Amino acid sequence: MNEPVTSRPIIQRRGHNDVAVDDSLVVEEPMEIRIAGTAIAVIMRTPGNDEELVRGFVLTEGIALRPDEISAVENLGDGRYQVVFSEGTTIDPEQFRRNLYATSSCGVCGKASIDAVRISARSAPPGPVVPTSVIADLPNALAAAQPSFDLTGGIHAAAAFTADGGLVAAREDIGRHNAVDKLVGLIAADRWPVTHPILFVSGRVSFEIVQKAAVAGFAIIAGVSAVSSLAVDLAEEFEMTVLGFVRDDGFNIYSGFDRIALDA
Amino acid sequence: MNEPVTSRPIIQRRGHNDVAVDDSLVVEEPMEIRIAGTAIAVIMRTPGNDEELVRGFVLTEGIALRPDEISAVENLGDGRYQVVFSEGTTIDPEQFRRNLYATSSCGVCGKASIDAVRISARSAPPGPVVPTSVIADLPNALAAAQPSFDLTGGIHAAAAFTADGGLVAAREDIGRHNAVDKLVGLIAADRWPVTHPILFVSGRVSFEIVQKAAVAGFAIIAGVSAVSSLAVDLAEEFEMTVLGFVRDDGFNIYSGFDRIALDA
Repeated sequence: MNEPVTSRPIIQRRGHNDVAVDDSLVVEEPMEIRIAGTAIAVIMRTPGNDEELVRGFVLTEGIALRPDEISAVENLGDGRYQVVFSEGTTIDPEQFRRNLYATSSCGVCGKASIDAVRISARSAPPGPVVPTSVIADLPNALAAAQPSFDLTGGIHAAAAFTADGGLVAAREDIGRHNAVDKLVGLIAADRWPVTHPILFVSGRVSFEIVQKAAVAGFAIIAGVSAVSSLAVDLAEEFEMTVLGFVRDDGFNIYSGFDRIALDA
Repeated sequence: MNEPVTSRPIIQRRGHNDVAVDDSLVVEEPMEIRIAGTAIAVIMRTPGNDEELVRGFVLTEGIALRPDEISAVENLGDGRYQVVFSEGTTIDPEQFRRNLYATSSCGVCGKASIDAVRISARSAPPGPVVPTSVIADLPNALAAAQPSFDLTGGIHAAAAFTADGGLVAAREDIGRHNAVDKLVGLIAADRWPVTHPILFVSGRVSFEIVQKAAVAGFAIIAGVSAVSSLAVDLAEEFEMTVLGFVRDDGFNIYSGFDRIALDA
């Protein structure tokens, strides 16, 4: 099954009316990512753009540091994908599995989590300065690029935008992180770091979203929903701009205020 | 830091007005769960009810099969918690780490994922039959039990309800899964399986939410948002009722239709 949306018979209640209808549901299926024959992760994802998802995951989790370290993503069938690294690139899958659980000597505080990101991310360079109108229009621009959301009402999206609000690309997945990884995997084929300044996500801005954005090279992270404390801490550390609750009536700026051109 | 909510200076834009305000953000901090000195998981969570979260996670992930297999949860400080098992209970942490990545010989299809849940879950017994009015009132009842959401607008919640809509307990967390685990960890101190029939979650109903609910013993899973295909597959396998888009104007029933008393 490789369709992102499937149909099921459901009962839909609206007001006091119950109607039997065929409804569109977002598909959720596991994917296994293997390195040198070792499974390093099983991800629940929406099928489609699988190779982009694998490439993006390997990059934003810091397993590969550059796209050219990945020479191929082999589809082994049954939801299994094998990452083949370029000659001269040595990745120890056991090392990565340990890293998933690695903690600093000070414990697993937020600071240790931020330090771990520093290995594969760098601070965002200054600029660009984006007008408020560009930020305000992100939800409309994303909605126009979300075919599966219209059907299911339940799929996340991530999109890259230029500083003047032009849509670069968008990807959908049941998981917020996967949508970002698919987007990064797509763009990384052409440019790395990403350098398109704006990443817009359909949900909350959590630590892991900012982590993936920092590694990929986005300067401005905007989300439709709330922003966590640790996401802001990480964004400040890497001099990134974070915006939340980006909706029709406005938005909140949490860090990197200089990149948003407020009205005088 | 053990508060679930923290304050930050932000710029809030509403219409054409930009105001500098102190805003409330949901706190996100890592927690490490250790078994016999080995870290088996690092979870991004909202501080508070940490011991319940650890107990719930260990139960709903099938690491312990019953609450009495957990003799203590030790707070090691710095976000680290150690699970101590009862005498005679043998848990091999290496085994669990492998299980995280275990896949069946047929691949990592949805069927293999459902088979993996069968180890620690059983089918829900028939009943109860719940009136539509109880389902329709779940959002209001949950909102009344969500103190941090009012402040931050960005924290998930999970709550258990009786068949006549009485609130048993509710827990909040930045992660949907964590909110369910905190709730299960709380209730499991008194009864296992949970047997309160209704689990209501503030977000989407994904495979992992239904998995945790199946292991805990809930018969009816309802969510404010969308339901995934694999969540319905799993619910059908364990004869559970799944409802989605539970909002003011109605809801959708995806499986286990018999438990909802529709108007004649």
